[in-house]
Amino acid sequence: MRSLSHSYYMNMALELAKKASPLVLPNPRVGCVIVKNGTIIGKGYHQKYGEKHAEVLAIEDAIKNGYSLKNATMYVSLEPCCHFGKQPPCTEAIIKSGIKKVVIATRDPNPFVNGKGIQILKQHGIEVVEGVLEKEAESINKDFFKYMKTGIPYIAIKVAHSIDGKIATPSNKRFLFNTEEENVFVHSLRQKYMATLVSVNTVISDNPILNARYGQIVRQPIRVVLDSKLRIPFECNIVKTSDEYSTYIVCSENVNDTQKIDLLSQKGIKIIFAKSSEDGHLELSDVFSKLAQQKIVSVLVEGGSLLNFSLLKQRIADYWYSLIFNVFIGGQHTKGVVGSEGFEDLFPKLVNTKVTTFKNSTIIEGDISYV
Amino acid sequence: MRSLSHSYYMNMALELAKKASPLVLPNPRVGCVIVKNGTIIGKGYHQKYGEKHAEVLAIEDAIKNGYSLKNATMYVSLEPCCHFGKQPPCTEAIIKSGIKKVVIATRDPNPFVNGKGIQILKQHGIEVVEGVLEKEAESINKDFFKYMKTGIPYIAIKVAHSIDGKIATPSNKRFLFNTEEENVFVHSLRQKYMATLVSVNTVISDNPILNARYGQIVRQPIRVVLDSKLRIPFECNIVKTSDEYSTYIVCSENVNDTQKIDLLSQKGIKIIFAKSSEDGHLELSDVFSKLAQQKIVSVLVEGGSLLNFSLLKQRIADYWYSLIFNVFIGGQHTKGVVGSEGFEDLFPKLVNTKVTTFKNSTIIEGDISYV
Repeated sequence: MRSLSHSYYMNMALELAKKASPLVLPNPRVGCVIVKNGTIIGKGYHQKYGEKHAEVLAIEDAIKNGYSLKNATMYVSLEPCCHFGKQPPCTEAIIKSGIKKVVIATRDPNPFVNGKGIQILKQHGIEVVEGVLEKEAESINKDFFKYMKTGIPYIAIKVAHSIDGKIATPSNKRFLFNTEEENVFVHSLRQKYMATLVSVNTVISDNPILNARYGQIVRQPIRVVLDSKLRIPFECNIVKTSDEYSTYIVCSENVNDTQKIDLLSQKGIKIIFAKSSEDGHLELSDVFSKLAQQKIVSVLVEGGSLLNFSLLKQRIADYWYSLIFNVFIGGQHTKGVVGSEGFEDLFPKLVNTKVTTFKNSTIIEGDISYV
Repeated sequence: MRSLSHSYYMNMALELAKKASPLVLPNPRVGCVIVKNGTIIGKGYHQKYGEKHAEVLAIEDAIKNGYSLKNATMYVSLEPCCHFGKQPPCTEAIIKSGIKKVVIATRDPNPFVNGKGIQILKQHGIEVVEGVLEKEAESINKDFFKYMKTGIPYIAIKVAHSIDGKIATPSNKRFLFNTEEENVFVHSLRQKYMATLVSVNTVISDNPILNARYGQIVRQPIRVVLDSKLRIPFECNIVKTSDEYSTYIVCSENVNDTQKIDLLSQKGIKIIFAKSSEDGHLELSDVFSKLAQQKIVSVLVEGGSLLNFSLLKQRIADYWYSLIFNVFIGGQHTKGVVGSEGFEDLFPKLVNTKVTTFKNSTIIEGDISYV
């Protein structure tokens, strides 16, 4: 009976967490419900990075509703924080409030918290129950958990292609079949992930802005350009708009064009140096590890054939979006979705797939699973 | 009011027509409803090639139900036939029955009928109403209408491919991701179309049987092999099973290996000669025109990159099925869905798409539309 009601209230906390918009990034989405004598006396969810956490909002909600928190039970989808970040620690607010029991879905994978929040609560005589709907709670913050556990951002790949798997025309021209539906979809993804990443080849050939322009705009992604040899042209849209949108360029440690580095830095662009292989290609594991150090929790890769292949080959891509236009392009030599040598066996798979149909296109998305 | 009820009963006739299985091939699917004083007194649909037509079945149904057909109105989804085929003409049965009015969705495009059935009914004092739900009636027999109007079978292409558009592994090995769901789907298609067509390269590399084996088996397709130079090996499964399943081989008019032709013919295989271009390739328009002469109303092409491209390029393919497995294969040189030079513009499109999701795959199908 007791565990049934635990799940019931925790589910409510998870539903609150899901309401959070990408404004919370790089924080996870957290929801909180406070219950006393079977009555829900306070609710809250973290709404924006730097602002109040779910626990504090729920406590304030209860007080505003005229309730005393004495002997109340708190249900929170993530272990309360115990360190000073942008906000004072939630453990402090909980202890002060008089709450008697805290039910937690999952520990915070952040090494600054991980179990310490629980320890502090217990030290102050608060009963703590852990692991209620733990998997569900992890799954709504897959990005945050991967980032914290591995030191690598959660990586999603988005590819727009023809039904026959081509990403350009036979003469390597970009195609533009997007209508409003596809634009809104792609630009919502750019907001959902902390950063949008392309290679410098895309910058040179397509000259994108890579901001979010269609549909409801909540936040703008950080723009990341992989540019091993720092070839990015000064006159490209990315550089021209670098005062408006956060922009990172990742180049090889061996780049020593200090003048170009200075000029780009003066424009507000952050230059990140990563290891490169002998053939001059950036080492992706180091690239993403460096991006994680910049607190980039998740990345949407809008790359080309080669980058897609490397991310799959190195097994560091987590999620996939195929935006499939209902057209045929064909051509034995036309650039496809996944280039280079491909997979002869141990094919990466797409699992937990979700299919969305638009008038002129179909989206197949899912978790990438490696054998 | 009158036209409303016409649509109502005609819709019923169309629903009956849709019940027909592929056993009617090469005939169209036809449904019939007979109404008297607002009561439906008889219903029928054509069930099997060579057996009774919808009109006769509906008349017999009314009689069996104890009704007189005098002054009744017949709703039939296709103009009644007026020629002796496998069955006596339906016009004769209608005239004899005493039916006073016949409402027809669409004229029979078959030049032996086309308007003549209507003329005969009128000559016998029967009132005829035409064009009720005409488009709907045509759409349920798209194959039959195309075949009759153009002298070319209705051509559908089915391709099984990875999410990135590959039909083989990088070393050109066949992949087999099919589970029961995909097998049942593909084998239902083989029954739906009168013939299943492959190129001799597929016969040599994959050695398929090309029969229907999974799910409910209603009929077996005619198997057609495009084999310009008559290279088909005697020991392949197609030849070995030619006593069980109808088999056609289309080769160039220039083939003069009379010994091989004789041996294949002795095995019950029908050899069809078609024009070929100077480079030895069969001329597809002639191939399909010759197949139409064999009363092949519709063809399911299970071909490769090159054949798919040619059918799109020559604008003779009508329908498309992408069976997309949730795996990645990749490789810049791996064979894709549509090969050869591809389309730089005037891209063929897929319209009226329908998407079906299986556990490990997604099917996108639709009408192919040419600019």
